Amino acid sequence: MAPQTQVHFRKVALIGLGLIASSMAHAMRRHGLAGAISGHARTPETRAAALEIGLVDTVHDSAADAVQGADLVVLAVPIGAMEAVAREIAPHLAPGCTLTDVGSVKQAVIDAVAPHLPKGVHFIPGHPMAGTEHSGPYSGFATLFENRWWLLTPLPDSDPAAVARLRDFCQALGANVEEMDAPHHDLVVAVVSHTPHLIAYTMVGVADHLRRVSQSEVIKYSAAGFRDFTRIAASDPVMWRDVFLTNKEATLDILGRFTEELFVLQRAIRMGDGAYLHDYFTRTRAIRRGIIEAGQDTDAPDFGRAKRG
Amino acid sequence: MAPQTQVHFRKVALIGLGLIASSMAHAMRRHGLAGAISGHARTPETRAAALEIGLVDTVHDSAADAVQGADLVVLAVPIGAMEAVAREIAPHLAPGCTLTDVGSVKQAVIDAVAPHLPKGVHFIPGHPMAGTEHSGPYSGFATLFENRWWLLTPLPDSDPAAVARLRDFCQALGANVEEMDAPHHDLVVAVVSHTPHLIAYTMVGVADHLRRVSQSEVIKYSAAGFRDFTRIAASDPVMWRDVFLTNKEATLDILGRFTEELFVLQRAIRMGDGAYLHDYFTRTRAIRRGIIEAGQDTDAPDFGRAKRG
Repeated sequence: MAPQTQVHFRKVALIGLGLIASSMAHAMRRHGLAGAISGHARTPETRAAALEIGLVDTVHDSAADAVQGADLVVLAVPIGAMEAVAREIAPHLAPGCTLTDVGSVKQAVIDAVAPHLPKGVHFIPGHPMAGTEHSGPYSGFATLFENRWWLLTPLPDSDPAAVARLRDFCQALGANVEEMDAPHHDLVVAVVSHTPHLIAYTMVGVADHLRRVSQSEVIKYSAAGFRDFTRIAASDPVMWRDVFLTNKEATLDILGRFTEELFVLQRAIRMGDGAYLHDYFTRTRAIRRGIIEAGQDTDAPDFGRAKRG
Repeated sequence: MAPQTQVHFRKVALIGLGLIASSMAHAMRRHGLAGAISGHARTPETRAAALEIGLVDTVHDSAADAVQGADLVVLAVPIGAMEAVAREIAPHLAPGCTLTDVGSVKQAVIDAVAPHLPKGVHFIPGHPMAGTEHSGPYSGFATLFENRWWLLTPLPDSDPAAVARLRDFCQALGANVEEMDAPHHDLVVAVVSHTPHLIAYTMVGVADHLRRVSQSEVIKYSAAGFRDFTRIAASDPVMWRDVFLTNKEATLDILGRFTEELFVLQRAIRMGDGAYLHDYFTRTRAIRRGIIEAGQDTDAPDFGRAKRG
């Protein structure tokens, strides 16, 4: 996609300076999307890092200071911290500014943030579906959002012009944008993200407990499938704790279906029902093909880890 | 590692010409490990492909013909087909030859193959822990085994000299070799491979059934974690059917632990026990670090899919 060089917002305030915010900063710089970038992070170490590597023009000890005069404010803190930040910044938000967030759960963020906002602020919740297993201010990079989805969940009374402006900005960061309502968003991510992560954490936890198979054997032989689980089970623990606490209903719903389905497969193994297993494993191949065709993954064997030489 | 140029076996017979056998053929050619390579596959299409791309010097309609005069015979067929192949080739095996296999389950292969073999044949079961989600004669490549483990599970009466010779050969193909007994092997792979695969298949199956979230949404937003499951759930259905049918006890054991553990996490979500979730997610990070340090995966974000630019 052609890089945009137009300034989208005069001043963007990043509250929280982890993987997502630092990647936004890099991408804004590269494409010239922001007149200025201010930032706030909870720890002095992160604030110092953000200045040192030039993520932000100014860094502030408080979120309230960081948002002064910003026409775009981005909440990029764990979901559990959203309400406190919203309370703190609310009186300091510039009239007419846009406020968005990058949380992985949307209804909980709306419930935490919306009640505290003054009239005239455009609150448009968002979720960039991009990330890696790394975290912190040094983990960001300008291309994180390219060819990834950025979901916006505007409220019924959101101003269409403000939504369109934020959409353009996300696209200029490299993302594809879709809009949906918050409850549907939370169900979709329970399927494609939250439940898979919980399952991966569980599988890694099981391996951690075994006595008859040593830890070093698990690590040594992990290439046989296990390591694909460990990558997503290495993500930020605070972020994921908050995801499961705040997307409880949808995750429990999908988990219930998962265990039901797992028990049916488990029974097929116990009964020696090879036909059932074969049919099941054949159907799941089709979804993989769909993902490759949609450009959401590479067809290179082993994600390209296997180097043909 | 320095490539070996010594001929290890005068004639190697590959029974089955899928991903593993074709990769062995490419690696044997590259390193000059075999005087000649003969092959057999069940379908005429695969046999024609193997000749066309030069995997083998001779291709045979029957496994019995392919093994004539071979001093190494490799059974690279699905586990469920091992017994029939062993019965067929047994009378045709050269005295003193080495017979190995590449099945992912070892006790079941021993039970299927050993009873049919004549005295004087060195049967040394093996399991190269390498693979991709692709299959068939065109999917092989010479470097598949590099830095991967090849587990050998010799029988109590295996000739040490024959085991040492096979070990050297596997190392010359690029692999690291370990020996263990078959029951321990089957438990280790239940943890690092079989249970993770079953769980991945299940998660993909759940997504396939949902009505409220469309198939196209699952595919579109799969980068959020789900796609890591689809890769391993795209593996060969026949191979995996046979794995679960033949490593039943160990897989059911690990699956039982998995569901137990999952229920504890599910309860923590339901009860809102954030401290438990946070502790759990922190512990699982350590295993990931162990895998990176052991050189069994890349530390590049997203397996290197995320291109920093």
